[in-house]
Amino acid sequence: MASGEGKKSKDNASGEGKKSKANASGGAKKKEVKRETGLGLTNSKDENFGEWYSEVVVNAELIEYYDISGCYILRPWAMSIWEIMQVFFDAEIKKMNIQNCYFPLFVSPGVLQKEKDHVEGFAPEVAWVTKSGESELEVPIAIRPTSETVMYPYYSKWIRGHRDLPLKLNQWCNVVRWEFSNPTPFIRSREFLWQEGHTAFATKAEADAEVLDILELYRRIYEEFLAIPVVKGRKSEHEKFAGGLYTTSVEAFIPNNGRGIQGATSHCLGQNFAKMFEINFENEKGEKGMVWQNSWAYSTRTIGVMVMVHGDDKGLVLPPKVASYQVIVIPVPYKDADTKGIFDACAATVDTLSKAGIRAKADFRDNYSPGWKYSHWEMKGVPLRIEIGPKDLANSQVRAVRRDNSAKIDIPSAKLVEQVQEMLDNIQQNLFDIAKQKRDASVETVRTWDEFVGALSQRKLILAPWCDEEEVEKDVKARTKGEIGAAKSLCSPFDQPELPEGTICFASGKPAKKWTYWGRSY
Amino acid sequence: MASGEGKKSKDNASGEGKKSKANASGGAKKKEVKRETGLGLTNSKDENFGEWYSEVVVNAELIEYYDISGCYILRPWAMSIWEIMQVFFDAEIKKMNIQNCYFPLFVSPGVLQKEKDHVEGFAPEVAWVTKSGESELEVPIAIRPTSETVMYPYYSKWIRGHRDLPLKLNQWCNVVRWEFSNPTPFIRSREFLWQEGHTAFATKAEADAEVLDILELYRRIYEEFLAIPVVKGRKSEHEKFAGGLYTTSVEAFIPNNGRGIQGATSHCLGQNFAKMFEINFENEKGEKGMVWQNSWAYSTRTIGVMVMVHGDDKGLVLPPKVASYQVIVIPVPYKDADTKGIFDACAATVDTLSKAGIRAKADFRDNYSPGWKYSHWEMKGVPLRIEIGPKDLANSQVRAVRRDNSAKIDIPSAKLVEQVQEMLDNIQQNLFDIAKQKRDASVETVRTWDEFVGALSQRKLILAPWCDEEEVEKDVKARTKGEIGAAKSLCSPFDQPELPEGTICFASGKPAKKWTYWGRSY
Repeated sequence: MASGEGKKSKDNASGEGKKSKANASGGAKKKEVKRETGLGLTNSKDENFGEWYSEVVVNAELIEYYDISGCYILRPWAMSIWEIMQVFFDAEIKKMNIQNCYFPLFVSPGVLQKEKDHVEGFAPEVAWVTKSGESELEVPIAIRPTSETVMYPYYSKWIRGHRDLPLKLNQWCNVVRWEFSNPTPFIRSREFLWQEGHTAFATKAEADAEVLDILELYRRIYEEFLAIPVVKGRKSEHEKFAGGLYTTSVEAFIPNNGRGIQGATSHCLGQNFAKMFEINFENEKGEKGMVWQNSWAYSTRTIGVMVMVHGDDKGLVLPPKVASYQVIVIPVPYKDADTKGIFDACAATVDTLSKAGIRAKADFRDNYSPGWKYSHWEMKGVPLRIEIGPKDLANSQVRAVRRDNSAKIDIPSAKLVEQVQEMLDNIQQNLFDIAKQKRDASVETVRTWDEFVGALSQRKLILAPWCDEEEVEKDVKARTKGEIGAAKSLCSPFDQPELPEGTICFASGKPAKKWTYWGRSY
Repeated sequence: MASGEGKKSKDNASGEGKKSKANASGGAKKKEVKRETGLGLTNSKDENFGEWYSEVVVNAELIEYYDISGCYILRPWAMSIWEIMQVFFDAEIKKMNIQNCYFPLFVSPGVLQKEKDHVEGFAPEVAWVTKSGESELEVPIAIRPTSETVMYPYYSKWIRGHRDLPLKLNQWCNVVRWEFSNPTPFIRSREFLWQEGHTAFATKAEADAEVLDILELYRRIYEEFLAIPVVKGRKSEHEKFAGGLYTTSVEAFIPNNGRGIQGATSHCLGQNFAKMFEINFENEKGEKGMVWQNSWAYSTRTIGVMVMVHGDDKGLVLPPKVASYQVIVIPVPYKDADTKGIFDACAATVDTLSKAGIRAKADFRDNYSPGWKYSHWEMKGVPLRIEIGPKDLANSQVRAVRRDNSAKIDIPSAKLVEQVQEMLDNIQQNLFDIAKQKRDASVETVRTWDEFVGALSQRKLILAPWCDEEEVEKDVKARTKGEIGAAKSLCSPFDQPELPEGTICFASGKPAKKWTYWGRSY
């Protein structure tokens, strides 16, 4: 259930930043932020990416920093993106007969520790409740970092016969991972929102099929909604979900800093948890069997990836499909021009677009200039701006300006809906195309260690032939650690290039078994 | 933000069950429950209401008891009810320009303690995180029992001028109140789901108006969705939200045990929090002002009230508006009858109803008898059962059986949609009417202390003229404590009967100021 939000691979047990002094406020990364957006960014995406990101999420009013380090406030502008994705995903999983439920936030220590690899993966980051009011609890209680151990004792209770299968549940909830390495809004936070699906099947074949069905939904969230190209593939043994059988993921890439980022994960847990939690059933013939399980999740991390991929030096850039306002309409009055006429035209424009199902809003505030409003809504990433001034009014037209490429066109009022819809579709497609071009341009295929190191230092997304041995991955990590950050495997893409007989592993010189993406990553 | 889930009035500071040993598993009220539903209840609603309730919520598959006391698993059958109400309420508040957001689960102690009355109300039940992994936190961190103190420091930051007002936010989330008195599924649990709205206005008039607009939505949830009559009114000073100015609520009543139950609350916080958190703004004239705030919430408690009000000795009874299946279709094959024809007719019936927007499902399981299925779906409370047997098939009809009153009618296939819709509407109305009759029959108007005590011992919902003094309420509570449980004020209904000049308070003998409902309560 890593969902990218800090993968819980074997790494984590021996992970980073374990020793620390959590602090209610001391560690808080506070930012004194300009209250009004639209005044421009002080950082540049190309020059100081990290600072640029922190500034954009705040100035676009997605995030407010909170007085507890690693916790962030999701403001309405972020929440509406989350809700749009949620409506899509929730409807899709309901079509698959997956039902929503809600399990408790708290886990008792006995259950949490039942699956050994799993607890090793999560234990260092578990937050513990030890007191209520003034009383000490007899036994400390953990806050869920993910819900496998919360749920599966009940799967064991509910599943008796083959007719109880498949059992397919999902919940939308918050989880807590008290990480100490570089908290980053959306990308790595101590509390985050996600959905977590947990399913149990009679056969491995059914579980395998569902893993891919869900992964395809995650691809659609990234590619169709967020306009971000992703690679579908399988994680290495070293990087898979702690306690699971295998992990698949969609992997995105941030060209600006050359980091891979796990977008969402769909795990086959095999029968490991079933064994520990005794989730057995009797099949048609009266024989005892053990279930095959999956778990899968995507989180608010998706929003952070979107900011990183599409944002620019004017601020956020929202793909139309996830924008709560797709069109912002701004009146541009001029001296003795017909101000009322202009305002009415703006209102009528919003009305016409809204009736056509386009999410539009007019900014009628009288204490800001049109220019200020342009910057403000650019900062917030609204895909399309419509300006209406005296000339537009006279010519029965509106001026439309694209956020993604600043292209301006005049649209005759009679063709408003048709042309706005077309522009929004173009913006959505263009954002994806540009992101894909940049991502593809970052891919470098290597065959030797020297090429690998060269590509790594150039912040590339590296595709390399690999022997697929866990020790070799650990070795790659260790050998690259000193430089600009340790490399790890991102995934072995399902879509494999040809691997000619005799190809050798870039790192070990042993026979290569597959092509795998490597790089530094979030 | 009490939302009925354990009101946080002044009572709580000196509240019950403070001294305690929380226990991860020891205190858990475990139930070994028959796995298959539909086998009938062992308890009766009239004879042992508490046990009946615990049995219904489990057997109807709404709830599973969890291994941490006071925490419960919300199963899909409960979650779907919650989601139906959520869709309604979320759309309504969006029409009011209230936006969704998400604030962190954690609160630092400094902020939590800022409003004195507020923290006194909540402190005894706050759960504290003191450890992450193996490390002690430098400062313990609280888990939100409600989010006033989480949010308002940021309201102070975001609100500067009158143009920033109103600020109207809502979040759907979990909250934690580590209560020790009688955990009860839905009604009183240590973690629960709710929405909490937090709004700030320039004027008291706007705040006052919104309090009532929201209260009306809560009334609609209870009366239109859950078919439960409620009284709208104002809480006493003693029972109002800790730290607020005044609290309004919708109050329901459980005739079986004569207890009032606070259904949902809409609070005007006045300027108390604004003062503590310095939420100021500059008005049009450049003068400094302080905002007026509201907060309001309803929780999963709603589902528990529904179970208590409508359930019977066959199990749950769902009002059609919140039933995830409104109609269950059961094939009734018979010996050498045309089984395939019957099954096809069932599938066609579901199809026809679904296309008409009615939520229908067929139970085709071949390992259960029709009789077992009848009991099973009665236990789960599905409003309408349709049976199709050989005779129905021959006559091109279906047999429909109402869950609420067991009435049976034959519906010609040609009139299926029309008559099913009509029956569902009737069931919804009938449930409300019956509940209202029972509630109204429980109301007793009293004028003297003796009448009051008599009515209380008969488990009545008592309407009494009251002087509206806090000391008198405390006194009523103290004087009734020994008997079947202390009485308290529930609310002073907005819809006040006439109060003739000279009417005196039932408890103090002083001049009465208003009519107020009293009783024991959850």
